[in-house]
This record gives sequence, structure tokens and C-alpha cells, in this order.
Amino acid sequence: MQLPSYTDIESAHIRIRNYIHRTPVMTSESINRLLKSDIFFKCENFQKAGAFKYRGATNAVFSLTDEEAQKGVATHSSGNHAAALALAALKRGIRCFVVMPRNVKIPKLNAVKEYKADITFCDPNLESRESALHEVVRKTGAVFIHPYNNFQIISGQGTAAKELLEDTKGLDCILTPVGGGGLLSGTAILAKSVNPLIKVYGCEPRQADDAFRSFHSGVLMPSVNTSTIADGLLTSLGPMTFEIIRQKVDDILTVTEKSIIQAMQLIWQRMKIIIEPSSAVTLAAIFEHPEYFRDKKTGIILSGGNVDLMNLPF
Amino acid sequence: MQLPSYTDIESAHIRIRNYIHRTPVMTSESINRLLKSDIFFKCENFQKAGAFKYRGATNAVFSLTDEEAQKGVATHSSGNHAAALALAALKRGIRCFVVMPRNVKIPKLNAVKEYKADITFCDPNLESRESALHEVVRKTGAVFIHPYNNFQIISGQGTAAKELLEDTKGLDCILTPVGGGGLLSGTAILAKSVNPLIKVYGCEPRQADDAFRSFHSGVLMPSVNTSTIADGLLTSLGPMTFEIIRQKVDDILTVTEKSIIQAMQLIWQRMKIIIEPSSAVTLAAIFEHPEYFRDKKTGIILSGGNVDLMNLPF
Repeated sequence: MQLPSYTDIESAHIRIRNYIHRTPVMTSESINRLLKSDIFFKCENFQKAGAFKYRGATNAVFSLTDEEAQKGVATHSSGNHAAALALAALKRGIRCFVVMPRNVKIPKLNAVKEYKADITFCDPNLESRESALHEVVRKTGAVFIHPYNNFQIISGQGTAAKELLEDTKGLDCILTPVGGGGLLSGTAILAKSVNPLIKVYGCEPRQADDAFRSFHSGVLMPSVNTSTIADGLLTSLGPMTFEIIRQKVDDILTVTEKSIIQAMQLIWQRMKIIIEPSSAVTLAAIFEHPEYFRDKKTGIILSGGNVDLMNLPF
Repeated sequence: MQLPSYTDIESAHIRIRNYIHRTPVMTSESINRLLKSDIFFKCENFQKAGAFKYRGATNAVFSLTDEEAQKGVATHSSGNHAAALALAALKRGIRCFVVMPRNVKIPKLNAVKEYKADITFCDPNLESRESALHEVVRKTGAVFIHPYNNFQIISGQGTAAKELLEDTKGLDCILTPVGGGGLLSGTAILAKSVNPLIKVYGCEPRQADDAFRSFHSGVLMPSVNTSTIADGLLTSLGPMTFEIIRQKVDDILTVTEKSIIQAMQLIWQRMKIIIEPSSAVTLAAIFEHPEYFRDKKTGIILSGGNVDLMNLPF
């Protein structure tokens, strides 16, 4: 299996940099004081389409040859990847086909509609989703872009860490959320290439801890009986992201639902920025594992800001 | 009455720049598309203590001689000015006395407590507040720093517009909220000195329209029967801010409560940043008076981000 390298992330960055926001790195004196760590937040909640996913999606869409691109792209997702892919396709002027479960939440559906994607609904189960996607690809000839188990997606996601390390010198460690593992994989490849001493941690809800179990058992484990407010982190790792995470990541840290909500609230209150629950698992991991981060220079990638304002957890 | 000039704002900026955040200027493609204007948001919601008020408070505190400073500063405020003054005093290492109504909201009280101010409670009426403040000043010898009708406060508030114009060339107009008028006064002095052709508008709730009535009648009118979600804008202009606004401001635009809430929600959703209702009157004014801003390069000062997350209007 060919895995992305630093060079692939560098190429991705050159390819996408005129399409994406170079998001700011923010700090908060009061959060630093509270957690006794020197924290640098890379604000992908300000990224186009509201999440880091736009980096990978843009890289995947603009990596296609003209011949591949003319039939469009397709994916299955009920979340940020679908909106990101739809916007990237719109920017290239090609079609985007999205398979979504019938029970998808309205704000997520509206985001994909706003970017003019062609939506196919399926039943909310794996079998229906896969057969619907298969049928869409067969009929249209569109290129399937997997949300995370994809070389160009992972390369694109690594560009967030590239910018973070360019803008913040001397980081001791970097934390990202881990769902399917695209962001964590890209981050780990990039960070370990720049400096093998930087610790890279994936953070996930204890109630959806498949990455933790896979990492520690050495066997790719599926996501089962998940129930978490961090709804972007329900997916399991894929073969490619699992292999990269095994090779490059230092540890997976799990956190409680209570810590996720507290961390989310702290960031809203103190930094005056809106992040989704999935983004809060990283700061929650500093609450729960302070010994890893005390007096360290700590980078956090805030993954996204797409939250239903009518339905907050606090 | 001696009024601040461009030079006073410049001196204030030199005095305070190492204490304040130079806040970012943000843009949103989707808001520009929706409102057909090219809008630049100066994010004072990211300022220390969560509002532009920290600029004026820091300028006032650091303008004092050592002899004046040693007895501390005092003010009456149930809002952002009290927290800002308390933090500025803490940074200079002097005492801060704050008179607050007994029914002050808990988050506001906690902010002032966090910055170690010495709090005196009064009854929630003008007479009780003034006699409590008078008594505090008599007993302590502290210097009274009025929230807006104060030369150094106005000079400090003008530094936000100074940074906005430095970072964004070619603005056609600038909007700020108007409550007591400190921010609007500082902005107007600065902007008209840099370029007399820049239009400067104050924005206020229709349900607290004393600045509108004062501006158009030419007589300083008190704030009466106010009832607005924009609780930072309940106060009346003072003699100094009224004089500056009469001389320098192009118009006062009033907005409905409905527009304020819609504008606040739009900024939260699209920009992923937290602003308080008082900050949303400016974007609301573009909703309600689009003809002033169509195809213009429009600056907005987002005044603050201190909002009770447990009690949102949507």
C-alpha cells in the first residue's frame, strides 16, 4: 500500500493554497493559565465549508485529470466531507454526487444543497449506503472520493499541520481529533517529517474508542455501540489511515462526554469562537491527561465549526 | 470642551499597543454575497476582557501619573467597561473600585471579580449609583474613569479604527454600534482625519434610539423606555461624545430587534465567531439600509463577545 509522504503534502499545499483559507493560529492566556500548557489553536473552524475537510476534498478534486474530472466526483457522507467535496467540485466546475441517509440532519443537508451537489438518499445503514453509491458511480462514471481512506485526501489534510508548524516554531506536540483518521494521518506524516521528536496524539471520545482499541491491539477494530456528542468521530479507521497511525502516532487519548462539553464551552467562552463538539476532544484530552502537556508548547487542530445553533449541549 | 484629535489617538495607540491584542480583520464570502457589500469585520470580540472597552480603559489607566495611580481608579458599570478597567488596573498593579447594581448578571459580576476589582453594590437606579460612586471616591481618593464621556477613553477606543484602516485600504464607510458613544466618537475622529470622505455611521436599536433622536434634533436627549436585547447600548450619550458625534458622524441608523437577532445569528453561523447582541446592530443596519452599502467597501467594528451562553436569543 503506497502511503503519502511529506512531498505529497507539500505538492497538495501548492495545488490547493489559492482555494483554501490559510486559517489563523489563535492563543488564549486564560486557557493557558488554567491548563498550565502553552497552547496554539489552528482554527480550521474558519476554513471554507467550515472544516479542515475542504483541504483534502480540494486536493482530491484538483488532482484529477481533465478526463477523470469531466464525469464528476461521488461520495457517501452525512457530514463535513460531503459539503467540502461539493464546494471543491463547484470550484472546479464539475458535478458532485452525494449519497446521504434519509435521516440526515437538515443543516448538513442544506450545506450540501447550497453547493449544488446531486443528492441520492439511502436507508441509514451500511448496506444501503454502499449499494446506492455503487449504483451512482456505475450510472455516472464519477470518481469515488472516500472521506479519509484516500491518498489525496490524507495529503490534503496534512496541509493544516504544515501551516501550523510554519506559523508556530518549536512545538513539542500536536493533538488532533480522530474519527476515520484522515486528519490525524496527514498531521502525523507531516509533523514526524519536520521533526521526529514532536509527539503526535489522536484524541477520541471514550464512547467511540475504535482508534484507541485498534492502536493498542494492533488489529483494525470496527466502531461499535458508539454514542457520543462528537458526531464527526463515529467512523472507524480505514486500512490506509490505520497503517499510518500505527507507524507514526505516539498515542491515542480518550475522553469522556463531560470533558468534551466542558472543553467546547471553555473555547466558546474564552476564545469567542464557535467549534463543533468533535473539535473539543483535543482540549478535553489536555484536561484528562495534563501530565503529557504541562509546560509544553502544544499545537491543537480545531477541526471544524459546523454546529446546530438551535441545539447546543449546554 | 477640549476634544481628542488624531494625535491623541496615535499617542494612545503607542501607550497601549503592548497591552492589547491587535485583533484580526475577518471577511466572509457568503455574507458579502448575501448583502452585496464588501465587508471587513474588525474583531474586537477577540480583544482582552472580550470587548473594545479594554483599549480605552488601558489608555486611561496608563495615562495616570504615578501619584494619581497610587490611589487606584473607580467607575460605575454593570458591563464591559467595569471588567476592562479592572483588568487594566490589574496590569498596572493598582486598585480598581467598581460600583454595580445589586441585580447585576452573574457572568458580568464574575468577570469583574476575576480581575480582582473591589466591588460596591448599589440599588439599580441612577441616584443610588451616583451616591455610591461619590462615597467610594471620597473614601479612597481613586480617580473616577467615566465609561465613555472621558478624553482618554475616547482616544483609546479610536485605536480600533486606526488598526482597521491600517489593515484595510480604501474603505468607503465604517459602522460602529452607539451606546454612550465612546467607540463611535473615537472612530469618527480617526476616520475623518485619515480621509474626510469615509462615511461614519453609528448604529443603534430602534428601541433605544436616544443617539438618533439627539443627532437629528441637535439636543442631547436622554435614553427613555429602552427595551432591547443589545444590552450594551442602553446608555445615553454624554456631552463630550454628543459634541464629537454632531461634528463628525454622517448619520445614525436604527434597527429592529428582529434584525439584530438575525444579524447575530448570521455572524455566528457563517463566521464561526461569537459576538454579543450589541455588536450585531452594525450588520443589522446593512440589512435595513442596503442602499448605503451596495458595492461599497464597508468596515464594521464588532464591539464585543461577552454573551451568556446559557441564555441565547435563538
